[in-house]
Amino acid sequence: MVAVTVAQLPLVVGQREHNLSLAAEAVLAAPRGIVVLPELLNSGYCFRDREESLSLAEPLDGPSVRALTELAARSGSTLVASLAILPAEAPARGEGGVPAPTSAPRRQLLNVAVVIEADGIIGSYTKVHLWGREPEHFLEGTEPPAMVASQFGRLALMVCYDLEFPEFTRLAALAGADLVVAPVNWPLEPRPEGSRAREQIVVEAAARQNRVAFAVCDRTGAERLDEEVGSDWVGGSLIVGQDGFALTPTAYGRPALLSAEVELEASRDKALGPFNDVIKDRRPEVYGF
Amino acid sequence: MVAVTVAQLPLVVGQREHNLSLAAEAVLAAPRGIVVLPELLNSGYCFRDREESLSLAEPLDGPSVRALTELAARSGSTLVASLAILPAEAPARGEGGVPAPTSAPRRQLLNVAVVIEADGIIGSYTKVHLWGREPEHFLEGTEPPAMVASQFGRLALMVCYDLEFPEFTRLAALAGADLVVAPVNWPLEPRPEGSRAREQIVVEAAARQNRVAFAVCDRTGAERLDEEVGSDWVGGSLIVGQDGFALTPTAYGRPALLSAEVELEASRDKALGPFNDVIKDRRPEVYGF
Repeated sequence: MVAVTVAQLPLVVGQREHNLSLAAEAVLAAPRGIVVLPELLNSGYCFRDREESLSLAEPLDGPSVRALTELAARSGSTLVASLAILPAEAPARGEGGVPAPTSAPRRQLLNVAVVIEADGIIGSYTKVHLWGREPEHFLEGTEPPAMVASQFGRLALMVCYDLEFPEFTRLAALAGADLVVAPVNWPLEPRPEGSRAREQIVVEAAARQNRVAFAVCDRTGAERLDEEVGSDWVGGSLIVGQDGFALTPTAYGRPALLSAEVELEASRDKALGPFNDVIKDRRPEVYGF
Repeated sequence: MVAVTVAQLPLVVGQREHNLSLAAEAVLAAPRGIVVLPELLNSGYCFRDREESLSLAEPLDGPSVRALTELAARSGSTLVASLAILPAEAPARGEGGVPAPTSAPRRQLLNVAVVIEADGIIGSYTKVHLWGREPEHFLEGTEPPAMVASQFGRLALMVCYDLEFPEFTRLAALAGADLVVAPVNWPLEPRPEGSRAREQIVVEAAARQNRVAFAVCDRTGAERLDEEVGSDWVGGSLIVGQDGFALTPTAYGRPALLSAEVELEASRDKALGPFNDVIKDRRPEVYGF
């Protein structure tokens, strides 16, 4: 059994130091194990324009990764987050080659999920399916979910809207994931009273259909609600077992540190009842792929 | 808007006349529209052996299809059910060529879902993913979900365990389904108190991920619980809109006629919010298929 924690934090757009200190507090309060932090932990989400998003991004060897590495060393945990990252070849703001202020910066950021242990990054993945206005800021990834051999088991790494594509969660299971880890920012939409958010049931269904555990970390802290780019968030962080049932209570719309003991090895057994197997029972020759 | 009904009936194994009369009562009580009936409507489910299942099957032009055709004519509705069917080339029981009583009959039945209107069968589909002991009785289908042009819209036809494969529900959406119709027999398993059955949330997730409506008809009436082959049932029939929210209340473990007005045309709009499209946002070049 491994202690898995999702840290639903009230991030603030543009406040990197604040966001990193929230992360530090959460990681040090969580039991040693796997700790998943929200999407775009360093920058927040609701950028006014490309100039702003560019100003909030940093290189992959920048201060956020350094801070998370120190935190992984201090806690002994394996940390997961996504960050607004400047590609290595892109000029940092203010350095030579930066676009003149009058020309809009090209979209050139990456939404990169990282897995970090005491010695630094052990795996990374760039978000493939972009949501909403993200294409104004981010280049999309071109690789399937990263498989990362962590100290606690094999993690498949994806980000937010990626989860909505059953092709993607299936790829993670076929690649042998013990746990799918996903930082998310789920925008709040109205839903019938008493219903779980649909983003959550998509994750629960994927866990059942693939017999793989999930740890999904959402955020709270409405951003710029009085502006067109603004959003509030579901606050739907959850950890789900291989049977598709959540192992954590809901904490809609508030900060929360949700932990569960997860039997990661159970993700290697794909049996569904005494006669069936959710992977072997697939019929690729009928699907045509 | 089309009236869609799922008729959760207390079928009895081996009692075809009884089962067909339950179906008749339900279809005539339902509003005119699309009426989905449970899986293996004619035979029931928990067969003791292959001899019994063979004895309960019938040709595709047999009494059950004739009865359902008369019922479609009388009601004006489009009917959906699955039936235990003898393939055309297989000898009917008692006719020439039937295996000698001492040799076990070959598995040779088909679990065929049919769509029936006033003039008879307008589409059929043989279950592809077999559950539990079904391979002892049934040959598996080799074709993807049938697409059937009914009087009310384009129906994609699948059966029970087929729903657990996201590849299959995706194929139905890509083929342009307005409504996925699925007769099922969901075996009852323990679940945490207050939780929806996982079979239901798999359907809700597929509806959201594909922006397509679903009508899934389960059954009630525990069969042979004192025998190894016996089972009770979830009674989880539901109709789900394109947003992944159920349009019908739950009726676990009891007979029920559940109807909802469904806007089938909305299944042709794959937009999710102002910027996204659940089909166009797929990245097949990343998936590798």
